Parts: sequence; structure tokens; C-alpha cells
Amino acid sequence: MTSPLEYILAARRCEIDELERLARTSELVSLIGRYTHALQRERGITNIFLATDSPEFANLRLLQVAECESLAAQVTSAFEELATGEHRVRNGARLFNRVAVALHAQQGLPELRGRIAARALTPRGSTAAYVRLIAGLLAVVFEAADSAGDPEISRVLVALFNFMQGKEFAGQERALGGAVFASGTIDAPTQREWHHLIEQQQHCLDASAEFSDADVLAAEEAGRDHRAIAQIERLRRKGLALGVAGHALPGSGTVREWYDWCTVRIDTMRTVEDLLTSRLRGLCERKIEEAQGALRDQQASMESLQRSARMAPSDAPRQFGPQLEHSVYEMVQEQSRRLQAMSDELETVRAALNERKVIERAKGLLMAHRQLSEDDAYKTLRQMAMNQKKRISDVADAVLAMAEVLPGPK
Amino acid sequence: MTSPLEYILAARRCEIDELERLARTSELVSLIGRYTHALQRERGITNIFLATDSPEFANLRLLQVAECESLAAQVTSAFEELATGEHRVRNGARLFNRVAVALHAQQGLPELRGRIAARALTPRGSTAAYVRLIAGLLAVVFEAADSAGDPEISRVLVALFNFMQGKEFAGQERALGGAVFASGTIDAPTQREWHHLIEQQQHCLDASAEFSDADVLAAEEAGRDHRAIAQIERLRRKGLALGVAGHALPGSGTVREWYDWCTVRIDTMRTVEDLLTSRLRGLCERKIEEAQGALRDQQASMESLQRSARMAPSDAPRQFGPQLEHSVYEMVQEQSRRLQAMSDELETVRAALNERKVIERAKGLLMAHRQLSEDDAYKTLRQMAMNQKKRISDVADAVLAMAEVLPGPK
Repeated sequence: MTSPLEYILAARRCEIDELERLARTSELVSLIGRYTHALQRERGITNIFLATDSPEFANLRLLQVAECESLAAQVTSAFEELATGEHRVRNGARLFNRVAVALHAQQGLPELRGRIAARALTPRGSTAAYVRLIAGLLAVVFEAADSAGDPEISRVLVALFNFMQGKEFAGQERALGGAVFASGTIDAPTQREWHHLIEQQQHCLDASAEFSDADVLAAEEAGRDHRAIAQIERLRRKGLALGVAGHALPGSGTVREWYDWCTVRIDTMRTVEDLLTSRLRGLCERKIEEAQGALRDQQASMESLQRSARMAPSDAPRQFGPQLEHSVYEMVQEQSRRLQAMSDELETVRAALNERKVIERAKGLLMAHRQLSEDDAYKTLRQMAMNQKKRISDVADAVLAMAEVLPGPK
Repeated sequence: MTSPLEYILAARRCEIDELERLARTSELVSLIGRYTHALQRERGITNIFLATDSPEFANLRLLQVAECESLAAQVTSAFEELATGEHRVRNGARLFNRVAVALHAQQGLPELRGRIAARALTPRGSTAAYVRLIAGLLAVVFEAADSAGDPEISRVLVALFNFMQGKEFAGQERALGGAVFASGTIDAPTQREWHHLIEQQQHCLDASAEFSDADVLAAEEAGRDHRAIAQIERLRRKGLALGVAGHALPGSGTVREWYDWCTVRIDTMRTVEDLLTSRLRGLCERKIEEAQGALRDQQASMESLQRSARMAPSDAPRQFGPQLEHSVYEMVQEQSRRLQAMSDELETVRAALNERKVIERAKGLLMAHRQLSEDDAYKTLRQMAMNQKKRISDVADAVLAMAEVLPGPK
């Protein structure tokens, strides 16, 4: 391989390779979406199961656990598939480490469910365990979005990740509200947490919308169930006021009502998520086809270039040589420009993921400086954000800025 | 693979894979360093050959061309080796595209040398062709530095790339000064260009020093030939004053004097470059060994964990289960923290390469908006920098900022 032309083809083949890898990762992301959705529902049902003695929710829970187990098996084997093609994974170390974290939480699930069945856990404790499990799965999606080398695909992955994260906050709200309505009471920290979950949902959905195309936005708008939203807003108002003396206790049906309306909304969100994942799949397929077509075109024009160079009369090299050289130069330059533009756009898209990275860094800093667990570090950031009425990412920024004047961890 | 432990190992194996890839890339970088050095010398000799009728330089040139040809064959086969393991290359598309650009310039070399031998080219035209060729080779090194996944290795690659780039500006200065002394005259644009080359050298060497360790800096300091530097400063002063009326023409020996002192200095720089590449090689080897050791340790501690979990009496699962789980959790967390820290540091190191990316982007913009060739776009930026007495990267920043208010290219 001494010709630049062959390296242009090699570069294109690397692109195709990367796109095929992304297609596989996208399948995994779509599966994680389905599993997360089922786990969110299990969390919501479990909370009401723990807070009441409703035989209906006991039954619902068992059905939901069965669905989750079947999806978990699919996710696990998708992870396995990813690992057997180990060398073809970009950012493999980070991705597999995220998988290890997710699987570790997954392995604790049977024991967690045992304690729930024995009612040996509070709704709060159960929620926290499911939140950790889902966070582990979403971190795998985040890594996939962060390591995507194609800007268009990265764009959809960023929209999807933010949407999944927003939906997860909606799920956390469903669980929290369920526990509040079941207990018939709310304290000040829970009130703040509830407000915060509402804000975080909105923030993630806005971030997702920023990277969604018009079709997805239109579908989201069309599918929005305004009746459910109105009911949720009414119940939020009731639930948040439970702490205020003089307010009437909710009727016994309120728990079910809250759960059902939240579920209607979250299931609608799931259809948008589904649309985004099928968009992702279609995009990967289209890009692979395009790249393969471009490769074929390049091969053809190279062959014709080489043919005309060979056919040129031997006394006219001065005429054909420069012409051939010029075409090769054009081809190389065109590819350079295209790769440069892609990499510029990729940088812009990826910047949207920085917010989360800043939070991760600030968390790591608090863990090191104050010997906090990961959970407690996040709670500290969230508490600071709630106290200062700021977004968590702003607080995280401030923590990192402060770190420069702090001594290192002992 | 359903255990998180296996994914921890898979993550580590990906790291080792990446390090081995970096070791191979580093060998290529070291080879490019040697070839670039030889080409720089060929450029300097050629300039004097073209500007004078010295038989001595005609002879030197032939010897130098032979050396270059032998090194070019080595570089070409190193490219080939990289391409045969195609799928294992990170950022393959960008890297191979750079290789295509470099090889394209390389293919034009025999014709260039033919025109030089026929004295059908000015020193300025010859310099420009060599500058392009070397820029193509350095762009491959840049890509290698930019795609390195390990922060320590990336740090050395960034130091090395900046050093190579600084040395290249020193080489360009040797060529420019050679042509000036040979012609016995200098015009205002050439004066400005000379000043600019001196500044750019310093800027690159400063950037390199920022990422070099104390040993390298000490070696650089110790190896610095102050006598050569003093002579070069004296000759710079003379050469830059050639345009001023009333100044004595340099003696006929000045060309040779300039060439020799510059060569002494550039050859000294080459030894520092050599030190940096051997540093790079040693670092890659050490990191691979460390990672393999860590993999073995992890495997051993996992086996012992699994053994003690199996040997635990069956009526004591509550005691051994959580203990095992805790150890796995610690392992996963430790790996997460390490990967996070690596990725943070990597971001810092890579930011140092941004300056060049900004220039590339501004160049691309000028090419699109004003239909300029790549060379002319760079010359425009350099001219703007010279006029405004700013650094090229500052001008490039300003160009990009302006772009937001400009209409798109027609």
C-alpha cells in the first residue's frame, strides 16, 4: 500500500466499521430503554406495595417482576455480545466498566426483591435501590452517546439519553408521590425533593428537545396526554400540601389515581423513546448504506483514474500525470474537509454531555475530600442545589472551581 | 459473562489493547521524526544549491536525497503495517486520511527533485513544497497525539509534537536564511516572515516544555549549544539588516556559516527529540507491564473471592454474601475512579492541541468563504497575525468568532 488512494479507502472502511459498531450499540440502548421502563414500573408498584397492604399491588408486583426478569436476561446477553467483539468497541475500558457497575447492581436484585417480599424495607430504601440500578443502566447509554464518532448519530443518542434521564426523573416522582399518598403525610425534605424532581424532568426534556428533529418533536407534541398532565398537576398540588395543617387527607383511592395517571404519562413518554430508538436504528442503517455507496464510488473513480493514466500515450505523461495527481489531491482534500466538519459538529453535540461530566467530577471530588459514598456525594450536591435554588450542574461547577484552592485529599 | 468481575477484566483488557496500539503508533512517530529531520536537511541544502552554483552543495544534496529515500521506504512500510491491523486503530478514518495526504505529497517528491536538479525552481518554490510535505507528516503525529487514550502517554506525545513543530520552524528558518544570504538581499515580506518564524519556534518550544518532565528539560538545557545560538543570533541580525541601505553585503562564506550553525542547533534539537521518543517508548512499555500486572492481580483476587464464597458454610451465606458483594463493589468503584481521573487528565492534556484545531477550523472557513487554497488560507491567517502583531491562533479565534455573523459559503 504505497498509494494515497488506498489510504482514502482504508479511512472510509474505518468509518463504516465505526457505523456498524454504533448500530450494535444502538440495539443495546434500545433494549436498555425497554428494561428501564419495566424497572421503573416495578419500582412504582413496589412502593405502593410496601406502603399499603393492597393485594392488588402485591399481584401487580409479581407480574412486573416476571417481565423484568425476562428483559434482564436479554440485556445481559446483549452485554455479552458486546464483550465478545471486545476489540471493536470504542472506549471499551469505560464502557465495560459501566457494564460492570450495572451488572453489580443487577446481581443484588434477587436479594432486594426478597427483602421487599418480606416487607423488610421502607419505600424510601426500596426506591433508592431501584434508582441506583437504573442509574447504572443509563450510565451505559451515556457512555454510548459520549463515544459515538458520527455527529448525526451522536445527536440522536444525546436526545435519547436526555429523554431517558427525564423519564427516569418522572418515574422517581411516581415512586415518591406513591409513597407520600400511601402514608398520607409529607415532610419538608420530601417536599423539596418532589419539587426538585419536577424541575429536573423539565430540564432533561428541554435538553432532549434541543437535539431532536422536527418529526420527533411533533410526535411528542401530538402524543402528549393533556388530560393526564392536568390530573398529575392537580395531584401534585394535593400531595405537596399534605404537610400543611388543616388540609384534608386524600381519599384511599388517591394512591391508585396517582399511580395510574403517572403511568399513563410515563407510558406516553415510552412511545416517544421508542420513536427515538427506531429513528436511531434507521439513521444507522442509512449512514452505513451511504458510506458503503461512497466507498464503491471512490473505488470506481480510482479505477478509472488509474486506467486513464495507464492508457495515456507514453509521450504525454506531462499531461496525464498532473491531471491524475490533481484528481487524487481533490479526493484527499474533500475527505479531509468532510472529516473535519464531522469532528467539529461532534464536538458541539458532545458539549451537551458535559453537564453530566461536571456533576460526575464534582461527585468524585466530594468522595475524595470528605470520604463520602457516591450516593451521599450526590445527595450533598442536590442539597446544595436545593438550598441555593440553583441547578445541580451549577453547584457542581462551583465545587470544581473551589477545588483549585482546596488542599488535596488526605 | 454474567458477572461484573468479568467486565472489570474486559475493561482492563481494552486498556492493554489501547496501550499496545499506542506503542505501535509511537514507533511510527519516532520514524517520522527521523524522516522529517532528513527532509529538513534536504530542504536547507537544496535552497543553497538553488541559490548558488556551489558544487559542494550539489554533492551534499545527492547524499541527502539518498538518505531520505531510504527513510521514506521505512515510513511507507510503517504506514502499511498500521493499515493491515486496520480495525485496531483508534480514530482510524482521520489517521488514514492524514496518511493519504502525507503519501500524496510524498509521491510528488521524485518530480520535485527532478525540477530541482534541472534548477527549474526558485528556492522559495522548493521550500514551499518541502514545507507541505513535512506538514503532512507532522499532521500524522498530531493525529496520534490527539487520539491517545492514556493521559501520561498523551502528555509525552503532545510535548513531542510541539517540539517537532518547533524544530520544523527552525528548519524553515534555516532554509529562508540560506536563500537570503545566498541572494545577498531581503525584502520587507521576507523580513516579516523571518521574524514570524523565530516567534513561532519559541512558541512551540514553550508549549513542548510545558508538557515535558524535569529530566527532559534538564537534558535539553544541558545539550543546548550556546555558542551556536549566539552565532545564529548574530547572523539573524545581519540577514535581517540586508535590506537596509548602507549595510555591507555578507562575505561569500556567510551562506555556509549560516547553514552550519543552524544545522548544529537543529541537530541538537534532534537529540532532544530522540530523548522524547525513547521516553515515549519506555513509558508505553512500562504502562503495558503495569496494566498486565494489574490484570493478573485482579484475576487472582477475583479467584480468591470466588473460592471463599464457595467454601463458606451453606448456613452462613448472609455473612459471606455481603462481604463478597462489598469487595466486588470496591473493585468496580476503584476502577471507575481511576478511569474518571484518567479521562479528566486526558481532557486537560488534549486542550493543548486545541490551538492547532482552531487554526485548522479557521483555515477551513477561509477556504470555503473565499474559495482559497489551503496554502493561501494559511498565508492569509499568517499575514493577519503579522499585521496585527498577534499569534496565529488568536487571529484564528477571531476569524471563527466572526464566522457566526457571516453568511454561509455560496
